[in-house]
Amino acid sequence: MRVRHKPWAEERLKDFPQYVIQQPESHKGKWREVFGNSNPIYIEVGTGKGRFITEMAKAHPNVNFIGIEVFTSVIVTALDLLIESELPNLKLMNVDAVNLRDYFDKGEVNRVYLNFSDPWPKKRHAKRRLTYKTFLSIYEDILPKQGEIHFKTDNQGLFESSLMSISEYGMLLTFVSLDLHNSDFEGNIMTEYEEKFSNKGDRIYRLEARFQ
Amino acid sequence: MRVRHKPWAEERLKDFPQYVIQQPESHKGKWREVFGNSNPIYIEVGTGKGRFITEMAKAHPNVNFIGIEVFTSVIVTALDLLIESELPNLKLMNVDAVNLRDYFDKGEVNRVYLNFSDPWPKKRHAKRRLTYKTFLSIYEDILPKQGEIHFKTDNQGLFESSLMSISEYGMLLTFVSLDLHNSDFEGNIMTEYEEKFSNKGDRIYRLEARFQ
Ligand SMILES: C[S@@+](CC[C@H](N)C(=O)[O-])C[C@H]1O[C@@H](n2cnc3c(N)ncnc32)[C@H](O)[C@@H]1O
Ligand SMILES: C[S@@+](CC[C@H](N)C(=O)[O-])C[C@H]1O[C@@H](n2cnc3c(N)ncnc32)[C@H](O)[C@@H]1O
Repeated sequence: MRVRHKPWAEERLKDFPQYVIQQPESHKGKWREVFGNSNPIYIEVGTGKGRFITEMAKAHPNVNFIGIEVFTSVIVTALDLLIESELPNLKLMNVDAVNLRDYFDKGEVNRVYLNFSDPWPKKRHAKRRLTYKTFLSIYEDILPKQGEIHFKTDNQGLFESSLMSISEYGMLLTFVSLDLHNSDFEGNIMTEYEEKFSNKGDRIYRLEARFQ
Repeated sequence: MRVRHKPWAEERLKDFPQYVIQQPESHKGKWREVFGNSNPIYIEVGTGKGRFITEMAKAHPNVNFIGIEVFTSVIVTALDLLIESELPNLKLMNVDAVNLRDYFDKGEVNRVYLNFSDPWPKKRHAKRRLTYKTFLSIYEDILPKQGEIHFKTDNQGLFESSLMSISEYGMLLTFVSLDLHNSDFEGNIMTEYEEKFSNKGDRIYRLEARFQ
């Protein structure tokens, strides 16, 4: 993702504390208070410009969503979508996923979505992949027992390495599609990258996996 | 696979006892005697016309191979290849894989190859797939601890369901390629079906999985 420098972006995130979580560590163990209800919380790691999480929040009003994105200059676009839609069940968080344990207690997050995560194709960068074992361990620590990750990508190499990483971690694969857009999967919500790559004719891969 | 009736086929298999195992159950626990050495034994389940297993046996003279095929009318073609090549490290067995436990003791088979197994796409036929849990259990019973299956197919649905079945069984995925012919995998030996489908432009999927 090309990132242009947007000095005003940080200011803008601060201007909308009702949508952008300002001090995520202060909510650890108390996320129910943030949403004012006890609905499950689903997070997307690497939310980008926010289309997926916004549409998910619209489609599932009884679930709380949090879009997590490390780049300020990208998440501001997600904020625009949220300002427009005024969704009460969606928040954004401008943080790095490596620190998720600082923000959530075990079981406070009920599902993790990963969409079109950066592929990091070089072997020496494998540790940066969001399905690398150290990241799986982070998700395990914030999900309940048998918590799930749902992962989509157009990237063949990332999908292959993710299948192996997930297996190696001892997770259970509960869903695999090697061509999502030509399958009978229902209710798919496209991300920005998904639209771009599928328009180019690329296949979309998808899996669900459960900690056990 | 279209199977023409070949009444002479059974006779022909009997005419070559040096290549076609006549009473497989009589060798249970004593397969070293059959090959006259203690090299590892790799079997292919559903060998078809035998190109893969014949080429593997040529390429790996220090491994013993057994091609297993239920249809008499198909395995005779494999026999022709074997007669021609006179390989000492290849035998054929005209049996149904459901009975493999009757022929091999635990650990007597060192690896199981499955190539282009019948896909059985209908859910109600899932039990017939050679990667269904009951078949995995058979392979586990004849392989050593940490024994492996190596599986190739062009069939997307079969590959998807196999990934899940293997995961559910608790096996470890140690290799996955979602496009074998455009990967850096070395030493691939094509089967008859593989050639046919890849010539049509279909992708070939491949995995290795280990019992644990
Ligand atoms: C390739 S983009 C995909 C964006 C969006 N999910 C989509 O499908 O359109 C990946 C995004 O993940 C973000 N990202 C990568 N690593 C991250 C991390 N450790 N924590 C938070 N976000 C991350 C990147 O900044 C980028 O915006
Ligand atoms: C689609 S063909 C593929 C043949 C060959 N492996 C190839 O790739 O060209 C599948 C073969 O598996 C055989 N087969 C299916 N189920 C079997 C079983 N339970 N035991 C032995 N052979 C079986 C079929 O008879 C058929 O010849």
